[in-house]
Amino acid sequence: MPKRYRTQLINSITGFKSAALIGTQSEKGILNLAIFSQIFHLGANPALIGMIVRPAVVPRHTWTNIQETGFFTINHIHPSFVEKAHQCSAKYSEDVSEFEAVDLTPFFEENIKAPFVNKSHLKIGLAYRDHKLIELNDTILVIGEIVHVSLNHELIKEDGFVDLNLAETVTVSGMDAYYTTQKLGRFNYAKPDEKFDKLAENLF
Amino acid sequence: MPKRYRTQLINSITGFKSAALIGTQSEKGILNLAIFSQIFHLGANPALIGMIVRPAVVPRHTWTNIQETGFFTINHIHPSFVEKAHQCSAKYSEDVSEFEAVDLTPFFEENIKAPFVNKSHLKIGLAYRDHKLIELNDTILVIGEIVHVSLNHELIKEDGFVDLNLAETVTVSGMDAYYTTQKLGRFNYAKPDEKFDKLAENLF
Repeated sequence: MPKRYRTQLINSITGFKSAALIGTQSEKGILNLAIFSQIFHLGANPALIGMIVRPAVVPRHTWTNIQETGFFTINHIHPSFVEKAHQCSAKYSEDVSEFEAVDLTPFFEENIKAPFVNKSHLKIGLAYRDHKLIELNDTILVIGEIVHVSLNHELIKEDGFVDLNLAETVTVSGMDAYYTTQKLGRFNYAKPDEKFDKLAENLF
Repeated sequence: MPKRYRTQLINSITGFKSAALIGTQSEKGILNLAIFSQIFHLGANPALIGMIVRPAVVPRHTWTNIQETGFFTINHIHPSFVEKAHQCSAKYSEDVSEFEAVDLTPFFEENIKAPFVNKSHLKIGLAYRDHKLIELNDTILVIGEIVHVSLNHELIKEDGFVDLNLAETVTVSGMDAYYTTQKLGRFNYAKPDEKFDKLAENLF
């Protein structure tokens, strides 16, 4: 297989991915915004999120900034600014803030040394906790603990579930394809010898 | 926050996730099928996929089997069997095969010591390569290298991109909510001082 063909294929077969803008800032205070699609839940207690960074490739500034400040933010992407989010994947030089380059407004919370994306309906502030080098391909698993969550309370169902479809969060496939979602079903906890139910509409 | 509320909330804020059925088999030959939502692209060359397993929780058999045989499979989930897939999250005992319990037919490829889900439109066979213990919460990052991909060639666009929307692959949010997708846009490679384009329809 030709290299680019192979890269597209391998990138798209793992399934739909979360796409988010990762906000960081350098010691000097230069704001950075990068689009990532390898972000995943690691555990609820402590509340940990993992993210894969590739220092050899874009976005190299994110990892440097996290090491300098100890913080990063995860900001959901919506159709209203999906093109600005994609533009953040361009290789801007270190002294350029993607917030300015793509015209997105930063937002700050006290005690979190990283910028949020003001327009994002779901913003997560994280403190760096650990990292693991993956020697097989020189990527790094960065682990952060959630220290702040900002979202409209109407998005939260009574059992704590957050309605990402109502939040208009997009999902991504491969390196450059964006999608919205349609609800299929939310189900009860499954047990070996029982049929589970669909959860009531007010929970989904 | 009450524990279950917190678990739902933290699980759903990372964004939409890939959901797939992980097929493995024990040394004794008992087939296992488990639903996972923490599966992610790690790199295209070598073609690596990462997956988070929690040995303390369900599905504990998957990791044991991978250690025994050195293989696992990733099988995409579609609306036609999303309820059977969710039922695989029930805590069946070690000697029960989820394939039989939920009535899904296994499929085998030569030299891959793990079962595929016959009905899945996109099947990936992986050889175990490495793992990393995450001490913060005793989870494990398992890394596999893609050794087999099975899909209908009509799903592959001319540049290698795989159309997961046409494949009817579902995406998941939180622990129990399933979604289909709608195409929003696929974009060209972004550069700092250029406006990128939407890719032509035949590529998306």
